Amino acid sequence: MLCRTVVLGPGLLGGSLGLALAEQGHETVVWGRRPAPLDYLSNIAPRALRTEIDLTKASQDAELIVLATPIGVMPDLLECLVATKALAPEVVITDVGSVKGPIVEHATALLKGTGAHFVGSHPMAGSEASGIEAARKDLYTDALCLITPVPETDAGALAKVRDFWGTLGMRLHETSPAEHDQIVARISHMPHALASLVVAAALEKEPSWAAFAAGGLRDTTRVASGDPAMWAEILLENRQAVLVALRDSQDRLQDLIGRMESGQIEPLQRFLLEAKALRDTHIVPRC
Amino acid sequence: MLCRTVVLGPGLLGGSLGLALAEQGHETVVWGRRPAPLDYLSNIAPRALRTEIDLTKASQDAELIVLATPIGVMPDLLECLVATKALAPEVVITDVGSVKGPIVEHATALLKGTGAHFVGSHPMAGSEASGIEAARKDLYTDALCLITPVPETDAGALAKVRDFWGTLGMRLHETSPAEHDQIVARISHMPHALASLVVAAALEKEPSWAAFAAGGLRDTTRVASGDPAMWAEILLENRQAVLVALRDSQDRLQDLIGRMESGQIEPLQRFLLEAKALRDTHIVPRC
Repeated sequence: MLCRTVVLGPGLLGGSLGLALAEQGHETVVWGRRPAPLDYLSNIAPRALRTEIDLTKASQDAELIVLATPIGVMPDLLECLVATKALAPEVVITDVGSVKGPIVEHATALLKGTGAHFVGSHPMAGSEASGIEAARKDLYTDALCLITPVPETDAGALAKVRDFWGTLGMRLHETSPAEHDQIVARISHMPHALASLVVAAALEKEPSWAAFAAGGLRDTTRVASGDPAMWAEILLENRQAVLVALRDSQDRLQDLIGRMESGQIEPLQRFLLEAKALRDTHIVPRC
Repeated sequence: MLCRTVVLGPGLLGGSLGLALAEQGHETVVWGRRPAPLDYLSNIAPRALRTEIDLTKASQDAELIVLATPIGVMPDLLECLVATKALAPEVVITDVGSVKGPIVEHATALLKGTGAHFVGSHPMAGSEASGIEAARKDLYTDALCLITPVPETDAGALAKVRDFWGTLGMRLHETSPAEHDQIVARISHMPHALASLVVAAALEKEPSWAAFAAGGLRDTTRVASGDPAMWAEILLENRQAVLVALRDSQDRLQDLIGRMESGQIEPLQRFLLEAKALRDTHIVPRC
């Protein structure tokens, strides 16, 4: 049986987490600031799930707290939990944020000496949808969860967090916060930013040309339909690593333009062939 | 009943065309240089389809010829047809190429005074697969075909080509070769080149990081698994328009980097929001 878990934030990730835990019969509280998403969640959730609008009431008996708000809100929320003494002794706190360096550093420093422990997590689940209406109990099943301990991380807290995500059927991988942020900058944040760029470069001049687009443009730009407020926060939070990846992309674009200008087919073909080889070898096709 | 049609080139597009025509009972010849794809096609096609390895024999009685080879081969193939006097009087020739300016200009000049007529077509069907093994009889159904007449285009030939694609269940749209090439540079060729760039920028440094990628990177880069030889030819053939779109992308990337460097969330959010609005309004979701 899992320990008593409190999920802070009733969005796609927090709501799905609540549904998955309650489905398994685990006693779960989901906290949110506004009543509407909580009411919605109450109506669709199994009875093991309770919603709560008072942060102190929600958190005071928790053994595990999962921060599932937008990442920009997490530091304030943590500070609020500490200031209101809403944390039980030895509570373990984790999160679902897409950037790990800043939150791990902030939480580790903030919780030092309080008896509470923080372990950073990034369950790689979600979609271009957002909000409680998109929540589903199987969002985490079979997906990958990156866990980012640091040398100061409490071993018991780490074990608890591993168990927690494992119980939801996630595959686990541990890495440092810094490497995590470099990885996601390359495989997620930079590609997301360039997908938005492609939409604008393809359509801004003449939006009606979209009528001539086939599946290629639709798939290439799918992620650009994601929530702009959430993604702006993510990109800025991971600014340093994303900028490295974007400047690398800038160099590659200059190189590509040079190959096009040369009018020679061989260098252009090599550019496309190397990308195809990397993709066909390393990116798993849709099943 | 359609006129006697000859398809030159037994790849994904030519093979699918042969299958679709023969399925409707239309007498169809598919020509290719090598026996293997022709044998493969013979084995899976209805009886109305005949294959032929001799270009003159294949073409001499045709009323409609469809060039379905890689675009780099088309000019030589046309010259060969003219030089060997393999064209029946008043034959109509069209093609399936993704770039229209060069082939329309070349064919119109070459066929002047021969009695044969050329009308450029771009049936927007296909996928990242290629070759006869990927051919299927419904590839063209409900897809869009861009037809690119010029002032010199023969009205009867244009009507015949419209009828031809219409019989296969395609939606038709007419535009000039120059506008066609600008459209596809923006909605297809530039996005394709950037998808390849994203693969390299995401994975070249550390290919194993692909294990952490979710559906976003897979979809964003899907087209980069296309045939490099074919796409290098397309990009170079449409070099001028693609370079305009790539240089525009370069300006937009510089702008995006500036917004990231500023550390301000509002300009970054606006960048993402404008792309989302364009995409959600104009790009049709997968059904």
